[in-house]
Amino acid sequence: MSALHGRVLHASRLSLTRFAASKLCPSCQCLQVRKFQCITGMGRRLSQVELTSKRYPKLKRGPFATLTDADVSSLERLVSGRVITDKSDLDGYNTDWLRTVRGASTIVLRPKTTEEVSAIVSYCHDRGLAVVPQGGNTGLVAGSVPVFDEVIISTQLMNNIISLDEVSGTLVCQAGCVLAALDDHVAQRGLTMPLDLGAKGSCHIGGNLATNAGGVRLLRHGSLHGSVLGLEAVLPSGEVLDCMSTLRKDNTGYDLKQLLIGAEGTLGIITKASILCPQRPNVVSVALLGCANFQGVLDIFRETKTKLGEILSAFEFMDTASMEMIGENLRLINPISASPFYVLIETGGSNKEHDEEKLSALLEGLMEKGKAMDGTLATDTTKIQAIWGLRERMAEGLLHDGYCYKYDVSLPLPSFYQLVEDMRERVEGSAKRVVGYGHIGDGNLHLNVTSSEYSQHTMDLIEPFIYDWVANYKGSISAEHGLGFKKRDFIYHSKSPSAVALMKQIKNLIDPKGIMNPYKLLPSK
Amino acid sequence: MSALHGRVLHASRLSLTRFAASKLCPSCQCLQVRKFQCITGMGRRLSQVELTSKRYPKLKRGPFATLTDADVSSLERLVSGRVITDKSDLDGYNTDWLRTVRGASTIVLRPKTTEEVSAIVSYCHDRGLAVVPQGGNTGLVAGSVPVFDEVIISTQLMNNIISLDEVSGTLVCQAGCVLAALDDHVAQRGLTMPLDLGAKGSCHIGGNLATNAGGVRLLRHGSLHGSVLGLEAVLPSGEVLDCMSTLRKDNTGYDLKQLLIGAEGTLGIITKASILCPQRPNVVSVALLGCANFQGVLDIFRETKTKLGEILSAFEFMDTASMEMIGENLRLINPISASPFYVLIETGGSNKEHDEEKLSALLEGLMEKGKAMDGTLATDTTKIQAIWGLRERMAEGLLHDGYCYKYDVSLPLPSFYQLVEDMRERVEGSAKRVVGYGHIGDGNLHLNVTSSEYSQHTMDLIEPFIYDWVANYKGSISAEHGLGFKKRDFIYHSKSPSAVALMKQIKNLIDPKGIMNPYKLLPSK
Repeated sequence: MSALHGRVLHASRLSLTRFAASKLCPSCQCLQVRKFQCITGMGRRLSQVELTSKRYPKLKRGPFATLTDADVSSLERLVSGRVITDKSDLDGYNTDWLRTVRGASTIVLRPKTTEEVSAIVSYCHDRGLAVVPQGGNTGLVAGSVPVFDEVIISTQLMNNIISLDEVSGTLVCQAGCVLAALDDHVAQRGLTMPLDLGAKGSCHIGGNLATNAGGVRLLRHGSLHGSVLGLEAVLPSGEVLDCMSTLRKDNTGYDLKQLLIGAEGTLGIITKASILCPQRPNVVSVALLGCANFQGVLDIFRETKTKLGEILSAFEFMDTASMEMIGENLRLINPISASPFYVLIETGGSNKEHDEEKLSALLEGLMEKGKAMDGTLATDTTKIQAIWGLRERMAEGLLHDGYCYKYDVSLPLPSFYQLVEDMRERVEGSAKRVVGYGHIGDGNLHLNVTSSEYSQHTMDLIEPFIYDWVANYKGSISAEHGLGFKKRDFIYHSKSPSAVALMKQIKNLIDPKGIMNPYKLLPSK
Repeated sequence: MSALHGRVLHASRLSLTRFAASKLCPSCQCLQVRKFQCITGMGRRLSQVELTSKRYPKLKRGPFATLTDADVSSLERLVSGRVITDKSDLDGYNTDWLRTVRGASTIVLRPKTTEEVSAIVSYCHDRGLAVVPQGGNTGLVAGSVPVFDEVIISTQLMNNIISLDEVSGTLVCQAGCVLAALDDHVAQRGLTMPLDLGAKGSCHIGGNLATNAGGVRLLRHGSLHGSVLGLEAVLPSGEVLDCMSTLRKDNTGYDLKQLLIGAEGTLGIITKASILCPQRPNVVSVALLGCANFQGVLDIFRETKTKLGEILSAFEFMDTASMEMIGENLRLINPISASPFYVLIETGGSNKEHDEEKLSALLEGLMEKGKAMDGTLATDTTKIQAIWGLRERMAEGLLHDGYCYKYDVSLPLPSFYQLVEDMRERVEGSAKRVVGYGHIGDGNLHLNVTSSEYSQHTMDLIEPFIYDWVANYKGSISAEHGLGFKKRDFIYHSKSPSAVALMKQIKNLIDPKGIMNPYKLLPSK
């Protein structure tokens, strides 16, 4: 049952895009999907995914203890009845959402409270057992699955909403709450979560924080480093670090919670958070426009920022290869005429007439000046969801091609699209497609190369070429996905040696035994 | 000359409130004031301020080396011609803006580049000399002045604006740039600094970052933890920590810059920063309203958030004692009828008609419902500045009473004003006045007690009473001013022992000799 839920959580990323969470599973409180449509139906079965230790034969297991029957019994006593050890049930927890890596953990623990997490980590610390924290397991850099046999600590059952202060907008909740469920909850009080992303139907807020998730609303509400007011975490020693403020301002000492945000679970397991939720817009409109070239996309962005000002809530872009892919693979319909580039503009404001007037003035101006070739405006929910689906279901659509080489980079806007064109030329003949889309308002490009199956030759064409390219343009090799297991060795492409050295010192200070999510974020050498 | 400039910087806090910096001093690039109106004219002279070592006789100097003539010569070689050692010139750098503490440093160094800062710190590190970084020296908790004889490293001459990307809104500058000068610079490109505070005319951006300054626009643009994209700092060893990203998103490793933001110069000296500047509103309006009671203030806040939504840019409150004080001490005129409480509402948007319509609808509703007793609306710059002056010149006005016991706390809104009333009752007969004002939109109360001169009896009535009170209501004992020298021993009132223990470990990791801004932020015991 629990493993099915594990898989349902994966599936929900696919089918719950922008789904208002209304029904929760009574046993584990995961989001129930209406139609079970698991990814295993369209690609590799979980057990067919190659073991990470086999795909990366040079990688050595760390000097950690190996789980014994006595350990299992001891851990079972800490979270009685919430331990998974059945092999087939473990597959969903061992394998990443993209089906590109598979660990060999033999145990999943599902605590309900901070005290239970603390007891588990404390036990593992004393025994020298490595652990991996796991939320919704929707990450794209293999950061939340074991590499070898790490003990998996899942936040699935830590899903209590603790409080919501309507006046200040402060939400307090456990780390395992699903983002869509939280958004649904705060919506009832006229508030909105400060982040939104395609995986909202299954990702956990603890995972969002641990990976400093960005998403489509960062443009409006800023990063989680600004929105998170308080945080509680269990450190690698098992000690509870209590930074649970609910205050908007608190300048008393180092802001330790910031270290945990984006640490990808390598410094501790986030157990609770307090988050500032902005006012929910009363009115939302979405426009989809077609452009003749990439310069047109940039021109529209600049014009939009000026004309829409405070009501602009998202500005996304897709290239024509993305739009063709989602038509072929998911049969989604492009509502406007085919164009080389598309932009999606969302507004969210408090006054319908005012917002429509601003948006109409912008769109008319863009059409008149010939910046937009074609466009459509949506104000009703169904049409808005249909347009957002084109953008948010890209990741899902790409999986239908077979294997997806996934990149998520930040680049200065002038060189933004050049990378896609250079990559297309480079992998010609070795890849099925190369598509580019992303959060152009944040300078964040999602570049994806697909082929029917994994090929080391194709991989060698892509890496380290892409990282060198990005470093050369002073970009970031991971804008919002993090480094996880897959990208950690490229950290020097985006961070200075002095910064990485200090990161290592901090890791060593907080986790001297190195048991907390090993083989992630920090470079292997 | 240089010391005069030091003092001009202090004075500019008084007279440059909301001053658009247009003229910079050709020699040190500090902001020139049109009319020199130094604080020393209305209170104690700098040399009359009691030495910190005398007022706090129990405090022991740390085991640091003492500056020798040979040290002075060596340091002089590193920043030739930019060293101050003349006693009378040193007073401005040794004394805090409030004239409440005075250090006994015998040297001020004024580097121009990161390399110079690195060379200085490296020298001091090797010699075991303690240092104190100083920006505009506008802090209110004695964090930027020496306690004993620390070497002062001033960022006064590090005031180059390095770049501004208009499309992304990214500003890159040195740490010694004055906030008002930066705002003026970005305004020319339709952008605004994401923070604004009364001391903008003299505070340095490096100091703003080091103290995680809040101010009146935090409500709209969020905290610096979200707005700062990159940072460069010199660590206590002299090593340069380069985290200078200009990207909006960069999830590659621990976000080390966050540790420096709010560390009050105890982990290193910030030398450069990259900051995201939002679109500047085309239209700004300000309303001042009078309310019969504090519940009315809260009701108006809630109504304002809903009705103004995305155009709300500030929500401040003042009590009647504040308004009376500023009338008596600075002869500023209250433009509406006397009321027990006042709220200041600012809107900033992109469309004049739309904004006025929203604001008018709000104000009419508030008057009709009797929530506001009286009010005035300002749309022209002169009147807007006059209204803002009432709020922003409070700190200046209070100094005219003599001595000011200054507190800056965060509290949950329902208990927000109770503290002022309790304090008034407690210090009756021992204080001239007790006034409350602040950023109610952020839950941030500025509570001030004044008397003609410092009295230990009055101090004992206030502390630790106020900290116990705030801790009891789960507030923060320092919302935005930081802990500095004055409040560090009360850190446990707002932070857990586990958090403080980790802070100490991090301080010890990065600054094992403890030379970087000692006696600040971390508790003495």
